[in-house]
Amino acid sequence: MVVFKFVLEKKDSESKARIGYFETIHGRVETPIFMPVGTVGSVKTVTPHELKEIGAQIILGNTYHLHLRPGDDIVNHFGGLHKFINWDKPILTDSGGFQVFSLSELKDLTEDGVTFRSHLDGRKIFLSPEKSIEIQSNLGSDIMMVLDECVPYPCEKSYVERSIELTAMWAKRCKEAKRNFWQALFGIVQGGVYKDLRKISAEQIVEIGFDGYALGGLSVGEENNIMYEITEFTTDYLPEDRPRYLMGVGTPEDILECVERGVDMFDCVMPTRNARNGLLFTSYGKLHIKRQDWKMSDDPIDPHCDCYTCKNFSRGYLRHLYKAGEILALRLNTIHNLHFYISLVKEIRNAIKNGCFKKFKREKLEMFKIGGDNV
Amino acid sequence: MVVFKFVLEKKDSESKARIGYFETIHGRVETPIFMPVGTVGSVKTVTPHELKEIGAQIILGNTYHLHLRPGDDIVNHFGGLHKFINWDKPILTDSGGFQVFSLSELKDLTEDGVTFRSHLDGRKIFLSPEKSIEIQSNLGSDIMMVLDECVPYPCEKSYVERSIELTAMWAKRCKEAKRNFWQALFGIVQGGVYKDLRKISAEQIVEIGFDGYALGGLSVGEENNIMYEITEFTTDYLPEDRPRYLMGVGTPEDILECVERGVDMFDCVMPTRNARNGLLFTSYGKLHIKRQDWKMSDDPIDPHCDCYTCKNFSRGYLRHLYKAGEILALRLNTIHNLHFYISLVKEIRNAIKNGCFKKFKREKLEMFKIGGDNV
Repeated sequence: MVVFKFVLEKKDSESKARIGYFETIHGRVETPIFMPVGTVGSVKTVTPHELKEIGAQIILGNTYHLHLRPGDDIVNHFGGLHKFINWDKPILTDSGGFQVFSLSELKDLTEDGVTFRSHLDGRKIFLSPEKSIEIQSNLGSDIMMVLDECVPYPCEKSYVERSIELTAMWAKRCKEAKRNFWQALFGIVQGGVYKDLRKISAEQIVEIGFDGYALGGLSVGEENNIMYEITEFTTDYLPEDRPRYLMGVGTPEDILECVERGVDMFDCVMPTRNARNGLLFTSYGKLHIKRQDWKMSDDPIDPHCDCYTCKNFSRGYLRHLYKAGEILALRLNTIHNLHFYISLVKEIRNAIKNGCFKKFKREKLEMFKIGGDNV
Repeated sequence: MVVFKFVLEKKDSESKARIGYFETIHGRVETPIFMPVGTVGSVKTVTPHELKEIGAQIILGNTYHLHLRPGDDIVNHFGGLHKFINWDKPILTDSGGFQVFSLSELKDLTEDGVTFRSHLDGRKIFLSPEKSIEIQSNLGSDIMMVLDECVPYPCEKSYVERSIELTAMWAKRCKEAKRNFWQALFGIVQGGVYKDLRKISAEQIVEIGFDGYALGGLSVGEENNIMYEITEFTTDYLPEDRPRYLMGVGTPEDILECVERGVDMFDCVMPTRNARNGLLFTSYGKLHIKRQDWKMSDDPIDPHCDCYTCKNFSRGYLRHLYKAGEILALRLNTIHNLHFYISLVKEIRNAIKNGCFKKFKREKLEMFKIGGDNV
């Protein structure tokens, strides 16, 4: 019995953009999609009900963080992550690998797995492909990710060459360790910024066979155009009938560029983290809510936005809340930014459906430039 | 034309408890009432829509804080505090006096007014009865409070004796300075813990004549039974046909005790501040959400509570959010605690209506003791 199912509905005639959907036991997700990040069991500042109002179809949970706190055994005691956090729509969990390689300074990497110290209390923890799948099984996510080695940027080609072999071996072991038939498992293509290695990695991972394919190790410091180029190159080696997920990406511009290059799924802390730093996305570019200019402004953040924040509060009030350090500022900003991202991918889907994606993308990018970083 | 109107509906036969309501241009408020505190234009962590869902009928804004930030002129530019914060129900503003006397270390007090330094940037600010009314007029609250001198506890009787004269003089000047016919103005009775001075102060303030009367300078360090005794004593000197407001009080127990002693209105930061510190109110006493005991608990905070938090989340999840430092924890805790306070005064009103307040109060106090501070 196959539970996870991806349906490719339409391919754009002018680009590699595509629309489709996938089914999970927690419902359907339309692609292209943006997944808000709920690191430790909460998309920061918002409730699951607000997420639904915003239109979120799927959220992301972080295996590393949830394993450390409260512990995946605890989450499992409550019936899994959905029940624990009271979110009944799909959840994707990462493998923990990215956090281990980026948050942990001391780590000991072998073929078997990686030993690292918790960033919370310093205790030693061992993560292997089998362990990652065990944790993700305890969490009960709809989509699990394989454990991979995330190499930094820049990275010597010889190192990346060896690394993709480890990533492929680990991917295979993850697939073998998978227990629950209803949990989908995505493979991850690595290879840094080296096209030939990306090709090899893609072929290795596709050969093993997964429910979907992710591009890992991008947006880690390389130039944007390199990221676009590698994405464009790599998607050609991924099967059309599986969703493609560009991990940890990115800006609204990145999403438009990479949908064009054949990507279906995105996640990023940018909308939520920027919101907490007072940086808001609008149709005309980015807006710093703390700016003196908004002191007397009766305007909403974005006159074209119909989010709760824009329908109810002025820039002047939001500026005041932010400068006074009020928690409500962080909430209202987060609602707006998430709504912006979720609406963007919805508009993208409509544009592809209506056969006008290239035009839509061009116009959007032009609009974003009007205000630049200072609407 | 009289806009503000208090109607005393029923007096309890066994105590001084009473039910009634008052009308403002922003609607009716039933008494006894609890007013959540929205210091700088936000009841911390919650939206105005959530406040309505919780059942809040009136909130409090702090004149001192709003004068400093964003400035009452700015608030006025937006059409007053109601429009600025998007709350269309009644608002009460204090005079700023309490904050000046409690937050400011250096102050220069004369008959004319008080000069103090801003706790934000240290600049010198002058507050007089006329200035306080001007600020509150700019804020456009439904109920303004007169500027009074708040003496500390303990305080020499000779000082308090002189102080109530200043308070009476300032009260008179506040009344004379009042501009907007639709804003009610409440007088404040001071006198520390000295009954004879409370009597004199009450008579002086009532003689001037206000829309309502507050008891100030209580719950500032004195024993609970002293506070109850002074409250019991003082309400006898206040007219029955005006609402009585016990400023800055208090615990759920305090509210029950002081409703019994003839008080109609309460405000306190306790439910909101405690929430942010993880201390939650329940039918069976207080609960520390961070306790290890709740790690695996599937129970809501309070099985008898129908707030959003209790209907949707377990103690185990709330404990996790709190320990992980998630902002959502502060929100969910605040919703619960405010709901507890708002429900308590609603139950109190019903008990008085049904002629069983004494019995209700006795049973509530017994219940609170079951769990003590550790349900």
